[in-house]
Amino acid sequence: MARPYNFCGGPATLPESVLKQASQGLFDYQGRGYSVLEMSHRSGVYDEIYQETKAGLRSLMAVPDDYDILFLQGGATLQFSMVPLNLMKPENGSADFVTTGVWAEKAAAEARRFGTVREIASSKDQNHTAFPNLETLAVNPNADYLHITTNNTIYGTRMHSALPTTAIPIVADASSHILAEPLDVSRYGVIYAGAQKNIGIAGMAVVMIKQELIGKARKETPVLLDYGIHAAKKSAYNTPPVFAVYMAGLVFKWAQALGGVSALHELNLAKAKLLYDFLDGSSLFFPLVQGPSRSLTNVTFRMHREDRADAFHEEATARGLLNLKGHRSVGGMRVSLYNAMPLEGVQALVAFLKEFEAKI
Amino acid sequence: MARPYNFCGGPATLPESVLKQASQGLFDYQGRGYSVLEMSHRSGVYDEIYQETKAGLRSLMAVPDDYDILFLQGGATLQFSMVPLNLMKPENGSADFVTTGVWAEKAAAEARRFGTVREIASSKDQNHTAFPNLETLAVNPNADYLHITTNNTIYGTRMHSALPTTAIPIVADASSHILAEPLDVSRYGVIYAGAQKNIGIAGMAVVMIKQELIGKARKETPVLLDYGIHAAKKSAYNTPPVFAVYMAGLVFKWAQALGGVSALHELNLAKAKLLYDFLDGSSLFFPLVQGPSRSLTNVTFRMHREDRADAFHEEATARGLLNLKGHRSVGGMRVSLYNAMPLEGVQALVAFLKEFEAKI
Repeated sequence: MARPYNFCGGPATLPESVLKQASQGLFDYQGRGYSVLEMSHRSGVYDEIYQETKAGLRSLMAVPDDYDILFLQGGATLQFSMVPLNLMKPENGSADFVTTGVWAEKAAAEARRFGTVREIASSKDQNHTAFPNLETLAVNPNADYLHITTNNTIYGTRMHSALPTTAIPIVADASSHILAEPLDVSRYGVIYAGAQKNIGIAGMAVVMIKQELIGKARKETPVLLDYGIHAAKKSAYNTPPVFAVYMAGLVFKWAQALGGVSALHELNLAKAKLLYDFLDGSSLFFPLVQGPSRSLTNVTFRMHREDRADAFHEEATARGLLNLKGHRSVGGMRVSLYNAMPLEGVQALVAFLKEFEAKI
Repeated sequence: MARPYNFCGGPATLPESVLKQASQGLFDYQGRGYSVLEMSHRSGVYDEIYQETKAGLRSLMAVPDDYDILFLQGGATLQFSMVPLNLMKPENGSADFVTTGVWAEKAAAEARRFGTVREIASSKDQNHTAFPNLETLAVNPNADYLHITTNNTIYGTRMHSALPTTAIPIVADASSHILAEPLDVSRYGVIYAGAQKNIGIAGMAVVMIKQELIGKARKETPVLLDYGIHAAKKSAYNTPPVFAVYMAGLVFKWAQALGGVSALHELNLAKAKLLYDFLDGSSLFFPLVQGPSRSLTNVTFRMHREDRADAFHEEATARGLLNLKGHRSVGGMRVSLYNAMPLEGVQALVAFLKEFEAKI
């Protein structure tokens, strides 16, 4: 059987070659007779995996030397709490937020437990189908940080403007487009991302953080929520999620071999163009996002014949085109085109969409 | 090459049959054409994995119906913070602690951030080589809970007495002997355990918690540290550590097929007896723990000829007997005999110890 194309928003499809390697390492890591799952996190073998994974990301994203790279449990959601606990002043702390969807709102709700949150831009009045222009925003110079969710998995939007001019640290949740297009790390104080979309598997977040922001956690911060602890202990204060770190390392090597982020970006532009071009010309389907707000990694659309939705998903699944359903809060369709989705997958999808349209 | 015996304290050896199954599911889960790593945590396929894993643990440990079972990220260490945040009164909260080693002390240190900690028993004056008798302890009836680390991985001790008489909830960190011997869940308010020893892989903790203790988290509790959220959302408030839940399910089925906890306990008694009997009669090696405090799962010992330590570990490794080094804070040797270590592994180890002794 041909491997189906899996367009899930996350946990998402992984490169086939990475799965093959991982499958081997799962039973016998490097011919050592034991699994990558069975090794001490204090061993030299694990340390090598950790170092390679970290170096892989540093190279792919050109992470500057004065940034630490952390591999943490709890996904992006735990970062919603860790960012304010570590970056917000204990007294009269505040943060500016750009709220462009559910995840941004959840991040803002967590920050509100610990200080004042000011919403300086929102796409709520457009049902989050457009991403605000950030370039001219007036950021509060006294806020502790500015938080932006730079790509919105659920709605299919992405940041398209330049960043606002501000001296305060900018924090980005880049979960759903990290490594899919260039991000200038040096412009941010913190970039975090759940791993289960473009990095590897569920159960881990990657955090890139400017060192000057580390070590300022509030006194009441639970130990595992303190960036300072993780930085000092090289992401192994407690037993790290060994397999997730290993998988990220394999994905980073795969990405490097394909030419790195710029090459993947080119490919992602081609993939997205193929799908958006079809949707723009379709009489049955229509995209939910217009113009520069369109995400490269999450494409949302609907069809005029909602009564055919069940048939659509059934036929797609039978064709090996999996997980095209939109997020339950939006409905319709969502197609995630992360790095591991090959161009052939998008071609197969567009061929199916055309056929389905022709039948109606 | 024969598979080596891996006596690591954790991440620890896994059953060979589980690794084989997992290796298959990693590339193609149940013939579906995609990996267990690539499936949505909102899918029916994942829900089945989750339900089976939970049912497996409920059956193995006879977890009463009025207890929830949670699968959480952050390992046992995050539980050090979650327990006080959820169980300790916000005003004048307090907890009694039995401090029998490093992990108990770390748990106590976290609790101290949120209230008063009273140490009602400690094994510190014996370098943690004996476990205090708890039966006659006077527990503070006004404390919010009593915390016990019921098996100490580093020192090789275990609780051997009956629990003290008290009406306050008892919280157990059972990370290193869960499923290795019977635990009467109904006597505890909370039992938690990191998964990387007897349950599955690193990156997850299992929490069994009496429902009446859920939903009382302090206002400032980060969302992912609130038991109420995880119970309401069936351990999927955010993307769960899918692979760790799956692996635990495979291990639970394997344990059930072997006869469950009582059968594993019999086997563990035999494994531990074989090793302790040898150590007690040895002229070269000597165990660090005596009498009923001896752990079944972590056996600590030293040898009279410390100058031969390097040779010892080298020869052991060459014989396929891995990770016999004691924890860096204790030194000497530590042999972890979790469920997945077969009797043959202990026989091979004792044969090697005898030969090594005979040569000196």
